[in-house]
Amino acid sequence: MIHTMAITKDHQFINDAPLETIKNNTYDWYWVDFDCPTPDEEQLLASFFHFHPLAIEDCLQQLQRPKLDFYDDFHFFVIHSINKETLFAEEINIFIHENFIVTFHKNALSEMGKVKKLIQSKPKSWDRGPIYVMYQMIDKIVDSYFPLVYKIEDYLNALEDALTYQNNLQSMKLVLEFRSDLLQLRRTILPMRDLLYRIITSYRFRLKKSERAYFEDIHDHLMKLTDMIESNREMTADMRDSYMALNSNRMNGIMMILTIVSTIFIPLTFIAGVYGMNFHFMPELDGKYNYFIVLIVMFVIAVAMLVLFKVKGWFIFFKM
Amino acid sequence: MIHTMAITKDHQFINDAPLETIKNNTYDWYWVDFDCPTPDEEQLLASFFHFHPLAIEDCLQQLQRPKLDFYDDFHFFVIHSINKETLFAEEINIFIHENFIVTFHKNALSEMGKVKKLIQSKPKSWDRGPIYVMYQMIDKIVDSYFPLVYKIEDYLNALEDALTYQNNLQSMKLVLEFRSDLLQLRRTILPMRDLLYRIITSYRFRLKKSERAYFEDIHDHLMKLTDMIESNREMTADMRDSYMALNSNRMNGIMMILTIVSTIFIPLTFIAGVYGMNFHFMPELDGKYNYFIVLIVMFVIAVAMLVLFKVKGWFIFFKM
Amino acid sequence: MIHTMAITKDHQFINDAPLETIKNNTYDWYWVDFDCPTPDEEQLLASFFHFHPLAIEDCLQQLQRPKLDFYDDFHFFVIHSINKETLFAEEINIFIHENFIVTFHKNALSEMGKVKKLIQSKPKSWDRGPIYVMYQMIDKIVDSYFPLVYKIEDYLNALEDALTYQNNLQSMKLVLEFRSDLLQLRRTILPMRDLLYRIITSYRFRLKKSERAYFEDIHDHLMKLTDMIESNREMTADMRDSYMALNSNRMNGIMMILTIVSTIFIPLTFIAGVYGMNFHFMPELDGKYNYFIVLIVMFVIAVAMLVLFKVKGWFIFFKM
Amino acid sequence: MIHTMAITKDHQFINDAPLETIKNNTYDWYWVDFDCPTPDEEQLLASFFHFHPLAIEDCLQQLQRPKLDFYDDFHFFVIHSINKETLFAEEINIFIHENFIVTFHKNALSEMGKVKKLIQSKPKSWDRGPIYVMYQMIDKIVDSYFPLVYKIEDYLNALEDALTYQNNLQSMKLVLEFRSDLLQLRRTILPMRDLLYRIITSYRFRLKKSERAYFEDIHDHLMKLTDMIESNREMTADMRDSYMALNSNRMNGIMMILTIVSTIFIPLTFIAGVYGMNFHFMPELDGKYNYFIVLIVMFVIAVAMLVLFKVKGWFIFFKM
Amino acid sequence: MIHTMAITKDHQFINDAPLETIKNNTYDWYWVDFDCPTPDEEQLLASFFHFHPLAIEDCLQQLQRPKLDFYDDFHFFVIHSINKETLFAEEINIFIHENFIVTFHKNALSEMGKVKKLIQSKPKSWDRGPIYVMYQMIDKIVDSYFPLVYKIEDYLNALEDALTYQNNLQSMKLVLEFRSDLLQLRRTILPMRDLLYRIITSYRFRLKKSERAYFEDIHDHLMKLTDMIESNREMTADMRDSYMALNSNRMNGIMMILTIVSTIFIPLTFIAGVYGMNFHFMPELDGKYNYFIVLIVMFVIAVAMLVLFKVKGWFIFFKM
Ligand SMILES: [Mg+2]
Ligand SMILES: [Mg+2]
Ligand SMILES: [Mg+2]
Ligand SMILES: [Mg+2]
Ligand SMILES: [Mg+2]
Ligand SMILES: [Mg+2]
Ligand SMILES: [Mg+2]
Ligand SMILES: [Mg+2]
Ligand SMILES: [Mg+2]
Ligand SMILES: [Mg+2]
Ligand SMILES: [Mg+2]
Ligand SMILES: [Mg+2]
Ligand SMILES: [Mg+2]
Ligand SMILES: [Mg+2]
Ligand SMILES: [Mg+2]
Ligand SMILES: [Mg+2]
Ligand SMILES: [Mg+2]
Ligand SMILES: [Mg+2]
Ligand SMILES: [Mg+2]
Ligand SMILES: [Mg+2]
Ligand SMILES: [Mg+2]
Ligand SMILES: [Mg+2]
Ligand SMILES: [Mg+2]
Ligand SMILES: [Mg+2]
Ligand SMILES: [Mg+2]
Ligand SMILES: [Mg+2]
Ligand SMILES: [Mg+2]
Ligand SMILES: [Mg+2]
Ligand SMILES: [Mg+2]
Ligand SMILES: [Mg+2]
Ligand SMILES: [Mg+2]
Repeated sequence: MIHTMAITKDHQFINDAPLETIKNNTYDWYWVDFDCPTPDEEQLLASFFHFHPLAIEDCLQQLQRPKLDFYDDFHFFVIHSINKETLFAEEINIFIHENFIVTFHKNALSEMGKVKKLIQSKPKSWDRGPIYVMYQMIDKIVDSYFPLVYKIEDYLNALEDALTYQNNLQSMKLVLEFRSDLLQLRRTILPMRDLLYRIITSYRFRLKKSERAYFEDIHDHLMKLTDMIESNREMTADMRDSYMALNSNRMNGIMMILTIVSTIFIPLTFIAGVYGMNFHFMPELDGKYNYFIVLIVMFVIAVAMLVLFKVKGWFIFFKM
Repeated sequence: MIHTMAITKDHQFINDAPLETIKNNTYDWYWVDFDCPTPDEEQLLASFFHFHPLAIEDCLQQLQRPKLDFYDDFHFFVIHSINKETLFAEEINIFIHENFIVTFHKNALSEMGKVKKLIQSKPKSWDRGPIYVMYQMIDKIVDSYFPLVYKIEDYLNALEDALTYQNNLQSMKLVLEFRSDLLQLRRTILPMRDLLYRIITSYRFRLKKSERAYFEDIHDHLMKLTDMIESNREMTADMRDSYMALNSNRMNGIMMILTIVSTIFIPLTFIAGVYGMNFHFMPELDGKYNYFIVLIVMFVIAVAMLVLFKVKGWFIFFKM
Repeated sequence: MIHTMAITKDHQFINDAPLETIKNNTYDWYWVDFDCPTPDEEQLLASFFHFHPLAIEDCLQQLQRPKLDFYDDFHFFVIHSINKETLFAEEINIFIHENFIVTFHKNALSEMGKVKKLIQSKPKSWDRGPIYVMYQMIDKIVDSYFPLVYKIEDYLNALEDALTYQNNLQSMKLVLEFRSDLLQLRRTILPMRDLLYRIITSYRFRLKKSERAYFEDIHDHLMKLTDMIESNREMTADMRDSYMALNSNRMNGIMMILTIVSTIFIPLTFIAGVYGMNFHFMPELDGKYNYFIVLIVMFVIAVAMLVLFKVKGWFIFFKM
Repeated sequence: MIHTMAITKDHQFINDAPLETIKNNTYDWYWVDFDCPTPDEEQLLASFFHFHPLAIEDCLQQLQRPKLDFYDDFHFFVIHSINKETLFAEEINIFIHENFIVTFHKNALSEMGKVKKLIQSKPKSWDRGPIYVMYQMIDKIVDSYFPLVYKIEDYLNALEDALTYQNNLQSMKLVLEFRSDLLQLRRTILPMRDLLYRIITSYRFRLKKSERAYFEDIHDHLMKLTDMIESNREMTADMRDSYMALNSNRMNGIMMILTIVSTIFIPLTFIAGVYGMNFHFMPELDGKYNYFIVLIVMFVIAVAMLVLFKVKGWFIFFKM
Repeated sequence: MIHTMAITKDHQFINDAPLETIKNNTYDWYWVDFDCPTPDEEQLLASFFHFHPLAIEDCLQQLQRPKLDFYDDFHFFVIHSINKETLFAEEINIFIHENFIVTFHKNALSEMGKVKKLIQSKPKSWDRGPIYVMYQMIDKIVDSYFPLVYKIEDYLNALEDALTYQNNLQSMKLVLEFRSDLLQLRRTILPMRDLLYRIITSYRFRLKKSERAYFEDIHDHLMKLTDMIESNREMTADMRDSYMALNSNRMNGIMMILTIVSTIFIPLTFIAGVYGMNFHFMPELDGKYNYFIVLIVMFVIAVAMLVLFKVKGWFIFFKM
């Protein structure tokens, strides 16, 4: 589908101006949005707008990083929105010129409708041209990153104390999933930040001083997001490593209990086994007190073992 | 609440000058502090001071990094104080102009009162204008970071020896909490350091040479804090990794004891079990010396096992 | 083998022009491809083309990184294709001059034939000279990297969920092999990216503005590949570390089960062993209810143990 | 205590010149050393020398990094010596001017006496002024870092082979202590290196070409120290990680032995236990050969188990 | 020992020219090689050549990094060869001037003889002066690094598959030794690379354009070596981490087998033990079918346990 809007030279807002008329002299500037276009509509990039073949190739392929290319008569952007379910990047391609902007995306994007409505409702913005459409679009998309990162940050802060005080496998699995999500988000946000930096600093993309403040504001937001992602990635790494350290400690405790019980009772059971043998001639079995002597010997062995473990400080683990 | 102070053109200190009069020609410069302001008071940023909408947006939102934005007629700062309990950042917004400074913060801040008293008591400072208020404010806030980092550093130094010589789960949990705290502190201190660097080096923020020395002194302190945090983070990582290495060693020792005891006594117990069976025809049970022969065989097996373990050097672990 | 093609001054495409004639004045520019050359053919680099001895040495040795050297009368490149089986780099050496290009490679390369056919079929490209041959060659080779990286990325995404929910050694071995493959790919792709950057930015390699866009497009692809490799390497590290954390947790669970069963039954078995001894004088054996008393004592010990483990929260692991 | 020395305009060395006379016109240049000064002596920095308040604050506080501040009429340095016992940094503050140098340190420093004697004994150096005192002081202090790092490097090289071939807990504890010491040393040496770099490159600190070579020599030494520390830190990390890998392998071996012995004998002991039961009606107990049949069955089970373990390749661990 | 060679102004090669004559006007340029010099010979650096004291100090000390110092009338280099046995660096000191080169090394170096012979045999090189001697020397030494790195790379590639498919302690120990060797090699090769970069880029070391290509060729080789070392270090880290992951998996398998066998047979053995007790009044012992009932109960318990383990998926480990 193709949506359009245009501002006429006599300062009127025209919604859904027919594409055939859009290059007419009557329009001050216009916006054409290729929204999930058909193959036929894709042809228009070359046949109607005559963009450079490399830009069209980048537009149609889905393997671009966020980027900015300068051509003789227009600039070409790729920016990324993030799919809320999969956290994968979705590409938005922008061709911008002094008096038009062409956007192209293969996924439905609610932000596009919002931007159009905003412009329609703010006649003051009609003078600001295509660059204002672009600013609003990037701003809306970057704003949509925040809830994704905040949600992860909030969960991680909630999980942190839980993990310190008990062995919670479900919490650890959540942490590891968030860690993976943060990596996925970073793959979009880092190149977006680099792109905004390039927009602000490039001498070929001549922003007016008043315009620059707006793009610097978006760059600020992307810096904040990058900081949060890096910091939360490091937090998940710390949580995982702490979990490992506590697990290894707990394992020591478990094994100590098993070892204490085993090393005390296995030798005693052996002694009992010896006197349970059925040899016909076993002199020890006869004496009246021999049974009690063996019991006492067993008790002494058990106590000696316990004292030994006590001396080695193993009992600290029973407190676990 | 809104607090004000002003210096008149004839060099008088006016405390709590009414806001309506503050733009009068009688004042050389003034300071307006929005201290936990009401929504009505927040409106004044736009209606009374006419700041740029982007600056007001940044001021009212709480998701800023420490930053510095240049506008046509004023500069806008965000700086961060650190909550002593949670270690989370709390935002302070500063609008600065040649002859006024407006500060805005949603949390109570004892530093503000201290700065005002200091200025009131030092008439010499009255000529130094809004920049001096800003310097004092940042200096006090950065000074308040130090006790937080020193406390962690002191604890870590105390914990280090403890951890090398014994397995101390409580100490390890403390180390891991400090590691998490350091990460939290770094999220504030790193961007503050970058901000101070920008204040010192920006050509648009024209500091007099005498003023620059003061901000460089704060930058020094932030460099020192960054060094301490990085170094202590690395120390906690080393402590955790060493703890893991010693734990793994201790586990080897525990398992060796269990294995030695088990591999000696389990086969012997089996032999005793065999001669404890109640078959009617078991020829070995009859001979006069068979019981003693079995005892000797058992003894030989046990000694052979011990010699084998001795040869493999396993007894080193009993020294643990 | 040596393949040639040439464009004559009167704009004709000559396939397999004899090498002896190739320096004739009749050709506008020409391409000589040394395809798995014989030692005799290798001699021609010095005897026929008179290249600099250092460039010839780099060409014949196989230990080069992708690189670009400027000589007085020509430029010398080394680029790398990747062997699809081994993922090892294979060297392609390029000597380029205003009116000729010489390529040299010791492995068969299907890309070479493709480039020649493309040029033959596009008369428009005949004016663009040797630099166009070079562009097409590098573009084809960099395009051939993508399937290798995409295949790994797709597998890793498929493996990720599998690993979170079960202990799957085969999946982990696959992850570790992909990690190793990514390292191998990076050894080629990183220096290729650096080389393309140098081609674009070097003032000595004077690209026309229209030509630069084409090499920037390849650089974009290499940036994208580098991002993917780094990101996937980090993903494999995360998967391995998560696997370790879950394994360590599972080990805790296994050992807890063993310890619970052992610490309950080993002492009870000892008690049974004691009353299985054959001493002639064991008073406890006589009473009518003593057997039942012992059974009850055993039951109480077992229940007490279970309650203790329950209190310590060990049963959480049976849910594993 | 305050030590002084001065060079008169007629080229005489004056030891312990009284402080009151030191600003007299008769001296070409002089050196005042505040050696563990009393609070009264500390006052002199402000009252007698009139240094800038920020420099005096940095001098009296102990929380500085090595640094260099430029003031209108003097330069201010903080450098660090290292306490040989604790490896903690000790601060030395230096105020340097064209014709005087003031040093200030709260710990006794043998280097100071050495430098004074050296100057007294080398009349040639009397013309070189305060900068020569500073060079000698820094050179002596940096030279004193080397034995500390060499000692660690030598120990680590000696420990490396020991750790590869046996499980040596004491050696590992030494390695971990050296790792911690290296981190402590780096906290001093890294900022010192940055300081020397700044001394060499700062345009405001105008070193003569002949003087620069001397400071570059110190910088070389600090580069060498940094290299050694980083390299040795990495060596300790490798040693620790290798120790973990070998420990984990050894654990596998221990557990395999335990598992082999247990899985063979526990089932056999159970069988013996069954035929040790005292039921009145157990038909198997009667047959003449049943005892031998059970023994043979047990033997077959044991051999089958051993064959199984052999097939799985577990016996490799007995070679451990 | 001191070796010399000289080229006379009338273009003759003089081998072993006496040192006393070497500054004569008859020589165009000369080379003096201090090969494992005696203390007396060391004196000549100061007394005969009058080099700067700092350069002589660096030359005599053995603690230098590869470096380049500019003095008024000569340049001073330190380069490092690598001892093939220990992989430790050995220092070669070079003083170079427009018409002489002095080399100084405390270890025998076969490269020196080779360079001399090469020059003697190539009269064309006699015009190229001391810089050509230096180039040949560095080139030969850097070439001698390659076999050391290639040997490690080849071994590691051979070991990689071995480690993935079986637990091979000897292979792991080899990997860890190679990892340590690579660290040792990097300590020499990284500073050498930085030195070559400095030689190429320094404006004070005026290389002719034709000379620069030769030093860039050496720099290429050092870049290649650095890439190989970093990449192989990372490969060893991956191999070690994978080994740990597989070991941890194997441990899980071993413990599962032990736990399955123990949890099945330990309770059964207890039951057998109970009925092996010798109490006079044990009613269960009397019934005709009680023995069989107990056997059936035991069988049911064992099967129930196996079903439980099967359901939990533990049997996957028997496939190990
Ligand atoms: Mg692209
Ligand atoms: Mg990316
Ligand atoms: Mg913002
Ligand atoms: Mg920000
Ligand atoms: Mg990461
Ligand atoms: Mg970190
Ligand atoms: Mg912000
Ligand atoms: Mg941060
Ligand atoms: Mg400071
Ligand atoms: Mg500092
Ligand atoms: Mg960290
Ligand atoms: Mg470190
Ligand atoms: Mg090369
Ligand atoms: Mg590489
Ligand atoms: Mg592209
Ligand atoms: Mg790209
Ligand atoms: Mg990596
Ligand atoms: Mg990362
Ligand atoms: Mg400081
Ligand atoms: Mg530091
Ligand atoms: Mg030196
Ligand atoms: Mg050095
Ligand atoms: Mg480290
Ligand atoms: Mg490294
Ligand atoms: Mg040096
Ligand atoms: Mg090094
Ligand atoms: Mg080369
Ligand atoms: Mg190279
Ligand atoms: Mg490394
Ligand atoms: Mg890497
Ligand atoms: Mg790294």
